[in-house]
Amino acid sequence: MRYDRLFVNGRLATMVAGGTPYGVIEPGYVAVLDGKVAAVGAMADLPSDATGERIDLEGRWVTPALIDCHTHLIFAGDRSEEYEQKLAGVPYQEIAKAGGGIPKTVEAVRASSPADLAAGAMKRLDVFAMEGVGTIEIKTGYGLNLESEVNMMKAARSLGLISGMRVEVTLLAAHAVPPDYKGRADAYVDEICIPLIEKAGRRGLADAVDAYCEGIAFTPEQTRRVFEAAKKAGLKIKLHADQFSDTGGAALAAEFGALSADHLEYTDAAGIAAMARAGTVAVLLPGAFYVLGETTKPPVAALREAGVPMAVATDANPGTSPLLSILTAANMACHLFGLTVEEAIAGMTREAARALGLHDEIGTIEPGKRCDLAVWDIERPAELVQWIGARPLHGRILAGEWA
Amino acid sequence: MRYDRLFVNGRLATMVAGGTPYGVIEPGYVAVLDGKVAAVGAMADLPSDATGERIDLEGRWVTPALIDCHTHLIFAGDRSEEYEQKLAGVPYQEIAKAGGGIPKTVEAVRASSPADLAAGAMKRLDVFAMEGVGTIEIKTGYGLNLESEVNMMKAARSLGLISGMRVEVTLLAAHAVPPDYKGRADAYVDEICIPLIEKAGRRGLADAVDAYCEGIAFTPEQTRRVFEAAKKAGLKIKLHADQFSDTGGAALAAEFGALSADHLEYTDAAGIAAMARAGTVAVLLPGAFYVLGETTKPPVAALREAGVPMAVATDANPGTSPLLSILTAANMACHLFGLTVEEAIAGMTREAARALGLHDEIGTIEPGKRCDLAVWDIERPAELVQWIGARPLHGRILAGEWA
Ligand SMILES: [Zn+2]
Ligand SMILES: [Zn+2]
Repeated sequence: MRYDRLFVNGRLATMVAGGTPYGVIEPGYVAVLDGKVAAVGAMADLPSDATGERIDLEGRWVTPALIDCHTHLIFAGDRSEEYEQKLAGVPYQEIAKAGGGIPKTVEAVRASSPADLAAGAMKRLDVFAMEGVGTIEIKTGYGLNLESEVNMMKAARSLGLISGMRVEVTLLAAHAVPPDYKGRADAYVDEICIPLIEKAGRRGLADAVDAYCEGIAFTPEQTRRVFEAAKKAGLKIKLHADQFSDTGGAALAAEFGALSADHLEYTDAAGIAAMARAGTVAVLLPGAFYVLGETTKPPVAALREAGVPMAVATDANPGTSPLLSILTAANMACHLFGLTVEEAIAGMTREAARALGLHDEIGTIEPGKRCDLAVWDIERPAELVQWIGARPLHGRILAGEWA
Repeated sequence: MRYDRLFVNGRLATMVAGGTPYGVIEPGYVAVLDGKVAAVGAMADLPSDATGERIDLEGRWVTPALIDCHTHLIFAGDRSEEYEQKLAGVPYQEIAKAGGGIPKTVEAVRASSPADLAAGAMKRLDVFAMEGVGTIEIKTGYGLNLESEVNMMKAARSLGLISGMRVEVTLLAAHAVPPDYKGRADAYVDEICIPLIEKAGRRGLADAVDAYCEGIAFTPEQTRRVFEAAKKAGLKIKLHADQFSDTGGAALAAEFGALSADHLEYTDAAGIAAMARAGTVAVLLPGAFYVLGETTKPPVAALREAGVPMAVATDANPGTSPLLSILTAANMACHLFGLTVEEAIAGMTREAARALGLHDEIGTIEPGKRCDLAVWDIERPAELVQWIGARPLHGRILAGEWA
């Protein structure tokens, strides 16, 4: 059999579920054809007639390229002053009065061109690349008007072209009610969110629609209208749910067959059961929990018990989760939320792919999937989660080629 | 005036106390002579007759090169299996029975040559360099016999030569009672610790002596004997104090004029007062607090109130603090212990220098100190602490030259 490329002598953590821990094949090979995994197996089983460019991984560990399935990576402006003040004990109200918080970011984003937005985010995207990320989701939600939300979608799409990473674009117009619609959330949904969803669907600007269902943002009823528009537009659905209170967000997401419900600190048993039935992924975001100093944790044991798949993401954003490391997010998911190391690694590979609706394409090392791999200088997969701030990446292979 | 080099157009966070926040001079210059800072000031005040190689920092922020004043960076073997088991809920006793914990590292270190030890640690040291660290303290304490503790000191000394970083070596033979001295801690102090201290003093193998004063390690009485030997040998003194219980460690350290007492989760008012009188630095180690899931925090407000200088360090080690990022340690010191951003940055510069007894040589950008600088791609100093996992370093300048 003739392949384009043969990666040999890797220690493969394929992350295929149901077999050995981490789906380990050691030592193993990965055969590539047309950017996809054509065959995977133990070196001992490599057919003698397999030909193609041979690349020796020299015993290094290999995982699927990492996936960050929840980020707000595109933004503008600087929120470090507000951060400084918060830690110095300045009350939230004073910071808000001085123009801090999301409105500050919105103002800066509205003043930026799509090219500016992409250039700013590209620097942050590089940091993810250096940690082995091959696919990243990026949300809008700092434009909050017709023009700037479109600019954010365009910037995100262009990052997919520039960076070589797969970028999934999520329209999050329903992130917050902007100052110009203060007290008129329903009108904001009708006049901004729904038209944007229709346009995103028509023009292919986004892959999914997200909303922030919370006391401080949108009600379940408003969220429902957003989801109905998304469904009509043929876009996938995700939800920021139950972060600070139980609004029934998880169940609402499940009702619409959402790919994921994210945060989930206050999700109850009914919400968990609904997610399990719908196959909705629980996306855990320990960075925000840590930065906000929260104490109520997502119900990890109950999610596990119910068979709800769990993903882990950075929630990277300049306010509540200034976290640019998916490996640190995985570490926090273990220490703060009680995931096992294997669950944390699955959470940034296999289950993160599922949270993006891409589990047939990426997330494990399996025949038929895109050959997106991360190659590591480590002794055991657990080290990826154990060591905070280490730089274990040897290199990334995207669509079968060194990136 | 003729200088060797002039760094111009920097935004200088000199970290000199008592003036502007962060000791900011913006835009500013640093003039270098013989590897030392000869002059610092505002660009407007740069004398017109100042000559020398001119390097334009293009408006970048500059801090003193960072200092990690507490690490266990030299070790051997892999503890990721034990880490995995702990997170999967395997009880501590079972892990210990299976040969996990410090004894596992000790076994691997005893089987390593000084060259092996240095090579292993060099990879980790590179990670610190990439984050702007110019000076690092490294402790022994995994050899726990005459030969291997000396090997660790030699490895640490050689890292100072190889890496270009300033490496401060601390002899921590009194880290744990090794298996071969089980139940005979006093004999271990007499037969191993004290002879090692004498040798380290005679041969210049270490700069300081440290001990672990805790129920599970050495008593205050044993620690006192270690300190007396250190004093006699002319070595500086540090202490792992009051981490899991109040053993009076902070007061004991202060009584001996220790440079620092480290951890301090259980230190009481008397200990704080003693540290304040003695000028002993409080070294905060949030990584271990986080990884161990502790809940009792060091008394930061009381330390601040008493005027005890506070440093922040990684405590980098393969068991209780697998943390290779001083910036993340600073972030944790803010979120978990309540430091302000400026205290956290001072904690990895000015106060970390004090914790090593090097405050006359490094830790601020001031005339007479070594010209060790970190140059950053950031908008404001607070970003260094705010963003977890970012890679903000533009470059390091050590002894006046790009490293
Ligand atoms: Zn989010
Ligand atoms: Zn320590």
